Amino acid sequence: MKKTMKAMVLTGHGGVDKLIYQDVERPTPQKGEVLIEVSATAKNNTDRKAREGLYPVDDDNRHETTSFNVGGGETFQFPRIQGADVAGKIVEVGAGVSPNRIGQRGLLDFNIYLDDNDNLNLTPDYYGHGADGGYAEYVAVPSKNFYSIPNSEIGDAELATMGMCSYQTGLRMLKASRVKSGDRVLISGASGGVGTALVQMCRILGAIPYALSSMDKTATLLQLGAEKVIDRGDLQNLKTNILKATGGEPVDAVMDMVGGRYTNIFIDTMISDMKKRDDYPRLSITGASSSNMTEILWTKIYLYQVEIHGVSHGMRNEAKQLMEWIRGGQLKPILHATFKLSQLREAEEYFVSRGHGYIGKIVIVPDAQWEKHGKRYALDRA
Amino acid sequence: MKKTMKAMVLTGHGGVDKLIYQDVERPTPQKGEVLIEVSATAKNNTDRKAREGLYPVDDDNRHETTSFNVGGGETFQFPRIQGADVAGKIVEVGAGVSPNRIGQRGLLDFNIYLDDNDNLNLTPDYYGHGADGGYAEYVAVPSKNFYSIPNSEIGDAELATMGMCSYQTGLRMLKASRVKSGDRVLISGASGGVGTALVQMCRILGAIPYALSSMDKTATLLQLGAEKVIDRGDLQNLKTNILKATGGEPVDAVMDMVGGRYTNIFIDTMISDMKKRDDYPRLSITGASSSNMTEILWTKIYLYQVEIHGVSHGMRNEAKQLMEWIRGGQLKPILHATFKLSQLREAEEYFVSRGHGYIGKIVIVPDAQWEKHGKRYALDRA
Repeated sequence: MKKTMKAMVLTGHGGVDKLIYQDVERPTPQKGEVLIEVSATAKNNTDRKAREGLYPVDDDNRHETTSFNVGGGETFQFPRIQGADVAGKIVEVGAGVSPNRIGQRGLLDFNIYLDDNDNLNLTPDYYGHGADGGYAEYVAVPSKNFYSIPNSEIGDAELATMGMCSYQTGLRMLKASRVKSGDRVLISGASGGVGTALVQMCRILGAIPYALSSMDKTATLLQLGAEKVIDRGDLQNLKTNILKATGGEPVDAVMDMVGGRYTNIFIDTMISDMKKRDDYPRLSITGASSSNMTEILWTKIYLYQVEIHGVSHGMRNEAKQLMEWIRGGQLKPILHATFKLSQLREAEEYFVSRGHGYIGKIVIVPDAQWEKHGKRYALDRA
Repeated sequence: MKKTMKAMVLTGHGGVDKLIYQDVERPTPQKGEVLIEVSATAKNNTDRKAREGLYPVDDDNRHETTSFNVGGGETFQFPRIQGADVAGKIVEVGAGVSPNRIGQRGLLDFNIYLDDNDNLNLTPDYYGHGADGGYAEYVAVPSKNFYSIPNSEIGDAELATMGMCSYQTGLRMLKASRVKSGDRVLISGASGGVGTALVQMCRILGAIPYALSSMDKTATLLQLGAEKVIDRGDLQNLKTNILKATGGEPVDAVMDMVGGRYTNIFIDTMISDMKKRDDYPRLSITGASSSNMTEILWTKIYLYQVEIHGVSHGMRNEAKQLMEWIRGGQLKPILHATFKLSQLREAEEYFVSRGHGYIGKIVIVPDAQWEKHGKRYALDRA
């Protein structure tokens, strides 16, 4: 194997011009690690937000850009190779890892856990942020974080779309809000990565997903399992339209990615008839694409006993559960298009310019793997 | 027994002039009920808020006054006898209740539960709101809601101060936020009814209560069990002062009654060092004396995985737990002063005019019981 590899290196906070395609040293797997030959890495919005520094977490500097450093330390340092949701093949193992793993095809759990007992993941960090990720030909990760997924019916680029960045976060959202069989669950931003994951996972759990989206995604969302699709654009009639979709029943729990002026409307759909509820109104939130700020009316929160759960990442046992579901064929890949690694800038620009104009994931494939794993899903494949 | 009784009847929404002291029909205990001869009923802020109609729950009508009717129906109707935290003696029983209960001294669990299995209390309502309460000589309540408290060391007026309106709500707040032994718990509005209950209950659970209050209450709060008292008035240095009080350790959970601009500062004291946490940052809120509105910065909620629990009432098993603690002498009565039932208007005005100027409960005693249960705690007793 060569000592170097191709990688897309982020050289600092800023625009896509901070992404430089270059040769870098190939990583060597350390004790307990495996070396993955990357075949596909799915893009996530967090790549862009971390690059642009759009995670303001300080009240007094609302417009200041900071990176996602909840662990206390500043782990997002440059140069950094981003890319969290990695599919590939084990080609080398570090000390303490069975050589039998070599050759396994699988999917990365992107979390950098503190230890094996890090159940709550309170200081979340991940490959592609606090350590190098998958926008490269190779990546070294802990053996425990790489799950063998042998299913031949799922291609590598498809497998990358089911990465933990969206799915594990979504599962944590559902569990934080105690979603159970029969629950009516409203999912905002339903056409995004977490949203499409949530629609599918609701069905696995026996819950009933109501998808909030632009209406051009209706067919796909219904196919994924949505009970009804509700127009995200009609804010004026949103509460009425949601309750019409549920047949007048209150929403049991809301999985939110949009925040802002939507939040209070979402809460209203849960408290519309308290007598019909069997648990507290519960809102899990993991993003705020509409606005980072919501005015909360406390009387509504405490009189109706509303719970709000902020969720950023999931837990190791949730990754295990998801890998089981993927192996069992219970989750469907939603792949919009592949781009070559050398064209990550173009993929980022496409991602931003298209906004909500498509559904499913964009997947980045190393140029050397393009023929095998990328070409058939490319935008210009036809 | 006479067919009538003295009562303070609320005749409509408005000022204290809506409270009319008059003779009304004495209630008769129905099936499963007991008739309580009231010896003392503690005042709660909710009496005033319900009377004035200060529970705005509609975004679009923020300044409209509505009563607390989360159950869907409008149960707060006039004429109504308010008063939730009732101590007294069983003098008569309805069908299906053992006559052995006659003569028992005890305390009311003020909740109007839907049934015996109403664990979550999702449509909370209570005696003194959805049905008549204790600002009268007699009140009829379900036998299951009246707990015998034989302890001779606690007087009836003192017993009323330990009523469920504050204590059960406080216990639910602690349980919603999973407060456990060793947790550092910040309590805002610590000198109020819920606040003083929380300080004491934290110690019973082995948690460490930090009390936010005006500094003139320091001695009493320390005596009740507060680890440190922090000046509520110094908003500028609040975060620093709280973290100084904890020796730099993050606050594990916040029990909030003030809301408004305080909320974000409270959250900051929990997320100051995520590496030192052993569970998510948790905020339980049951009031918003500072402001009903808080601007929530979602990045702070989801990146730090903050939980917010709105709490209005507690559950039946929490009432049972509290009655055990009262019987065991583990909770201390905090009685500021007694007023005669005929002087409830004056008590209400005193309550409002004094603001945060005292600590502990005001207790209302029927005029006929004044010599026995009220006089020794009166403001002018000296």
